[in-house]
Amino acid sequence: MKPVTLKQIAETLGISITTVSKALKDYPDVSKKTKRLVKELAETLNYKPNAFAVTLRTKESKTIGLIIPEVVHHFFSSVIKGIIAQAEKKGYLVIILQSNESYELEKKQLDLLLSKRVDGVLISLANGTGDFKHLNDLMAQDVPLVMFDKIAKIVNCSKVIINDRKAAYTATKHLINSGCKRIAHFRGPLLPQNSIDRFLGYKEALTDNAHTYDPSLVYILEDMSFDEGTYFAGELLKDHNDVDGIFINTDLVAIGAIAEFNKRGVKVPEDISVVGFSNWFMSSVINPSLTTIDQPGYKMGKTAFKLLYKEIKTRKNNQTLTYKTVELKTDLIVRESTNLY
Amino acid sequence: MKPVTLKQIAETLGISITTVSKALKDYPDVSKKTKRLVKELAETLNYKPNAFAVTLRTKESKTIGLIIPEVVHHFFSSVIKGIIAQAEKKGYLVIILQSNESYELEKKQLDLLLSKRVDGVLISLANGTGDFKHLNDLMAQDVPLVMFDKIAKIVNCSKVIINDRKAAYTATKHLINSGCKRIAHFRGPLLPQNSIDRFLGYKEALTDNAHTYDPSLVYILEDMSFDEGTYFAGELLKDHNDVDGIFINTDLVAIGAIAEFNKRGVKVPEDISVVGFSNWFMSSVINPSLTTIDQPGYKMGKTAFKLLYKEIKTRKNNQTLTYKTVELKTDLIVRESTNLY
Repeated sequence: MKPVTLKQIAETLGISITTVSKALKDYPDVSKKTKRLVKELAETLNYKPNAFAVTLRTKESKTIGLIIPEVVHHFFSSVIKGIIAQAEKKGYLVIILQSNESYELEKKQLDLLLSKRVDGVLISLANGTGDFKHLNDLMAQDVPLVMFDKIAKIVNCSKVIINDRKAAYTATKHLINSGCKRIAHFRGPLLPQNSIDRFLGYKEALTDNAHTYDPSLVYILEDMSFDEGTYFAGELLKDHNDVDGIFINTDLVAIGAIAEFNKRGVKVPEDISVVGFSNWFMSSVINPSLTTIDQPGYKMGKTAFKLLYKEIKTRKNNQTLTYKTVELKTDLIVRESTNLY
Repeated sequence: MKPVTLKQIAETLGISITTVSKALKDYPDVSKKTKRLVKELAETLNYKPNAFAVTLRTKESKTIGLIIPEVVHHFFSSVIKGIIAQAEKKGYLVIILQSNESYELEKKQLDLLLSKRVDGVLISLANGTGDFKHLNDLMAQDVPLVMFDKIAKIVNCSKVIINDRKAAYTATKHLINSGCKRIAHFRGPLLPQNSIDRFLGYKEALTDNAHTYDPSLVYILEDMSFDEGTYFAGELLKDHNDVDGIFINTDLVAIGAIAEFNKRGVKVPEDISVVGFSNWFMSSVINPSLTTIDQPGYKMGKTAFKLLYKEIKTRKNNQTLTYKTVELKTDLIVRESTNLY
């Protein structure tokens, strides 16, 4: 007979795994009635607390799982490289799964990794993920989890991030300092935290510096592709021919926009200045080269693994666990697509 | 007590795993004396033939290993994406390791994957790999192996390739047809088969078309980087100011060369035509855009997994195994860096 899991108890009672876990640990935010129900059922089914964690501890798989939205992407492939380099140093192997920005796929892949008994999970969320039950369930089963780059602030685990809001503020401020008067923003989809934070940084830089925030200058992109860059550059010229600067959420889109401006004879930076985000290798090579925010992918990967490794060891030694959020530094790289000030 | 392995027998006798495997299977190319020694030792140690394969068959890990020279690389990240997409369809997970073009690392990683009891291995060789014992040893242990892109012709396993020689011939022929009279070649390092084949295709196109092959026009690159592209473009202008065309082994180097030509006021394609190889996304975006050979990375990844999967199933069902080499089609993509003919 297979050992009873938290999941089975949760399903039997129609409550979440997190609640079951909390009830068994006597958390104050679970009602007395629920606690009683859970504990009774656990006893009836002969549930062994932390069975999964115990298995993990005694039988490490020395394998971790990585779920990433997209592999063919300069930033994420740099992160992957950082993770596997650091994992190898500690004798760990890395299983890589791509969520294709889909919440459903991400959930499925987390289950798959769990069934493989990985020692821990690193994740950067899909754009489609707006519900975090799957992550809380994972943690309720005592599986170490570290989020990086595209994180959920409300999930209580270790994280590696950059300060997107501050970086976007710096990018927008640079456009203001270069003399731009009407600054547009190509933002990412509505859900991801980094797309929200970059938008907020843009807005804040404007209002802090006596610029009017005009919502009609903010374009919401979906797949953040080169083609969206060319398309929205065209839309922008049609809608607002007085715009003289844009802060664009990611380099690939910015490169698309510059290609469109070049094609139409709109001069960058003379007619319009452009600042991107991420510092892809490509950005230094295009003409004009792109001013952008450098996002340290390789370092982010290494740091994420280090945090996960530390958590695996802490749990193994039954030491007290504290979650940590590491914020990595970003830099503004000034190139030809903006005027010097 | 751990079961005795082929490796232990090999090490005890100071011979290769392949020889041990062949001796046990009574291959004619192993001496009688060796066969006797191997069989006696196997009996003494109570060696169970194909113990590893048996374990594999009865207890599939549903995990495969992938060893790739470099993750942050448009072509290889497309391959990875193809592999994990196809693997997921069949319920397999993929462990990814990066060899950093090092033979030593590649060997170590293969051992690691073996110890993880992966169901099979996909590999694209490191530039440093000139000895294939580690691969033959893997196969001697009945672990399915499929090579792709950077392969070794003498290893007898399934492969997914492109016809590098033919593609390079096409690229060079295009330069000849565009009117180039003196055509240089930036080639890759000496060991990798694809770098050899591309060079041979270049040479053959010249001699087939009444062009003199001049070895001084062939530059041997080491790390195939953007910086090497800029450096060797400078060297070429210094050494041979009569050159009016170059076929460059990979797009990243070609993009470096074009950047250097742009900087020095050498006009592409008016003064010098450039053809690359791989069709990175970047190549369509630079100015002038790059004529190149399209190398189907995503498809190569999918095909490699399909071959591996088929081999896993064939072995599991004890059916006869036949190795297959699949050659994928490449296309010449004509853009602005060459003259139309």
